[in-house]
Amino acid sequence: MAGGVGSRFWPMSRQSMPKQFLDILGTGKSFIRHTYERFAKIIPDKNFLVVTNIKYKKLVLEHIPEIKPEQVLAEPVGRNTAPCIAYAAWKLKKTNPNASMVVTPADHLILNEDEFRNVIKECIEFAGKEDIMMTIGIKPNRPDTGYGYIQIDNKTPQPNEHIYKVKTFTEKPNSEMAQIFVDSGEFFWNSGIFIWKVSTIMKAMEQFLPEMHHQFRSIEQFYNTDEEQSHIEQIYPECRNISIDFGIMEKATNVYVRCSDFGWSDIGTWNSLYQYSQKDDSGNVINKNCITYNTERCIIKNENDSLTVIEGLKDYIVINSGGVLMICPKDKEQDVKKFVDDVKFKTGDKYI
Amino acid sequence: MAGGVGSRFWPMSRQSMPKQFLDILGTGKSFIRHTYERFAKIIPDKNFLVVTNIKYKKLVLEHIPEIKPEQVLAEPVGRNTAPCIAYAAWKLKKTNPNASMVVTPADHLILNEDEFRNVIKECIEFAGKEDIMMTIGIKPNRPDTGYGYIQIDNKTPQPNEHIYKVKTFTEKPNSEMAQIFVDSGEFFWNSGIFIWKVSTIMKAMEQFLPEMHHQFRSIEQFYNTDEEQSHIEQIYPECRNISIDFGIMEKATNVYVRCSDFGWSDIGTWNSLYQYSQKDDSGNVINKNCITYNTERCIIKNENDSLTVIEGLKDYIVINSGGVLMICPKDKEQDVKKFVDDVKFKTGDKYI
Repeated sequence: MAGGVGSRFWPMSRQSMPKQFLDILGTGKSFIRHTYERFAKIIPDKNFLVVTNIKYKKLVLEHIPEIKPEQVLAEPVGRNTAPCIAYAAWKLKKTNPNASMVVTPADHLILNEDEFRNVIKECIEFAGKEDIMMTIGIKPNRPDTGYGYIQIDNKTPQPNEHIYKVKTFTEKPNSEMAQIFVDSGEFFWNSGIFIWKVSTIMKAMEQFLPEMHHQFRSIEQFYNTDEEQSHIEQIYPECRNISIDFGIMEKATNVYVRCSDFGWSDIGTWNSLYQYSQKDDSGNVINKNCITYNTERCIIKNENDSLTVIEGLKDYIVINSGGVLMICPKDKEQDVKKFVDDVKFKTGDKYI
Repeated sequence: MAGGVGSRFWPMSRQSMPKQFLDILGTGKSFIRHTYERFAKIIPDKNFLVVTNIKYKKLVLEHIPEIKPEQVLAEPVGRNTAPCIAYAAWKLKKTNPNASMVVTPADHLILNEDEFRNVIKECIEFAGKEDIMMTIGIKPNRPDTGYGYIQIDNKTPQPNEHIYKVKTFTEKPNSEMAQIFVDSGEFFWNSGIFIWKVSTIMKAMEQFLPEMHHQFRSIEQFYNTDEEQSHIEQIYPECRNISIDFGIMEKATNVYVRCSDFGWSDIGTWNSLYQYSQKDDSGNVINKNCITYNTERCIIKNENDSLTVIEGLKDYIVINSGGVLMICPKDKEQDVKKFVDDVKFKTGDKYI
């Protein structure tokens, strides 16, 4: 899933170049490239499907030249994760109705990739044998209020020591509730990574999102043909804009979670970017051509060819990218959405 | 005099585009253009001479298309104001040995231009009749430590109520001394504007800077000929690097000051720029395409085509110009020189 516009990292991420195509941690590779390489060790190139907005299709193929254009599914409009997953599932069903399917965001950070692959392989094996939907839950190391949580059902017998039946999916909690969640030991972060058989998710779609299921079934004969795109462009805008979590996972009763601890972050905020980035001696995350004086705990990003000189800033985000300079205290990062709205209102799409 | 490199306003002013060619107050015209227009009302175009570095000759002619290339005197290297004034004086002497001469920096701000011109005319008249050197002193309205001061001699009879004989020239005082200067009523800011007959400054040069006088006299036959430039390029690098104030004014005894109050600033610091610029309701000096939140008393400059969004900054200078972003507290503006040195050391001349 690589269709997001990543406005939280504006002005570093832009509609023309959202987060999944950026290397905001300075690793040398984009998020989508890391995601591909992470899976390529256990999944053959021909089995990848990337769902993205039609305007990013070319970018996807530039970042993953190993896959063919027909493996990049082009959404005419964004409709959240449920239609995205339905679309991929229908194409897979036509290719191989017995297929298993791993669903993953393209813009997350995984630190221990070997452990991650072991978890994925285990989930594929387990979900391949049963008519169940697997999610990956991350052992929380802090009461993060930016994530949804998955509560395990520890009364139902476990298939193995790491897999539990899911009791509930919860929305992002407030900080008091998040602390209770973490202290209880029953709650795990919802990573947004899912594993299931195509036949299982199809059944769940039919049950919980029957209208959407009907829409995708109505063009069944065109998947994997030259006419697929034009039919997708007809039905997609009509699809309900809904997440897979809200549309299916929260309602289904055959959901299991593989509790894991491989070092994960959705890098969804400047503060998580800060947390996972390399820092200089003053705790600044900077790239080359940044000269700082009396400056601490800042995130400073400029373009390759430009120079930044900063004196006397503490705990700020300073982004100078693509003709836009943004300066904002780290503890006001939630205001970036407001900035984007205001900029749109005042200057149109030029700087978005 | 338009040869300065204006590094105090880096990164807005650059070696390739120093302060005199910029419109840092947002008036719609560069300093040098304002200076030309200010004098053009009382001095014919053909009487202007602009002394600048050879690399700025083209820029001068772009900003003042009314003058001819031969009116722009090209210094091969900067040698402070004494050689600059000597060069112009020698050329003038050859054209008209009876000429009077007004010397002015090209990058100062004058608010009341009518009053200014009246002062200049009065000085030209007075200096034209006597063998004396006139300076313009500005009535101080605050104990500024960034200016040199001129002390009047109020025992010698005055030629008129505004003109005094000069007792001393002083260097920039500390703030305690500056307060004493202002309270005394005897001290005026040294504007760096001078009026004298060519014959008078020649005599002073011969007396106080005899070696330099000899250097410029040695090529007397070549002024205003095709060979002038090549001879200037030979003698100029050998000239002593010295200001007219230190070389002559402080030593001469025939110096008078016209005390004035026409609204003057050398706009030599970011804080003086701030003082003389238009501000928004939060006291910010900003240009277009700047959006601020909770931001007060800042100087924010970006390029025409770029956007700046700032939250939560108070009393900072934020300049984003020509591939360089500088952020610095207003009360640390003196550190800009250090920044320039460090940038030069680390990256060479690219960003200077």
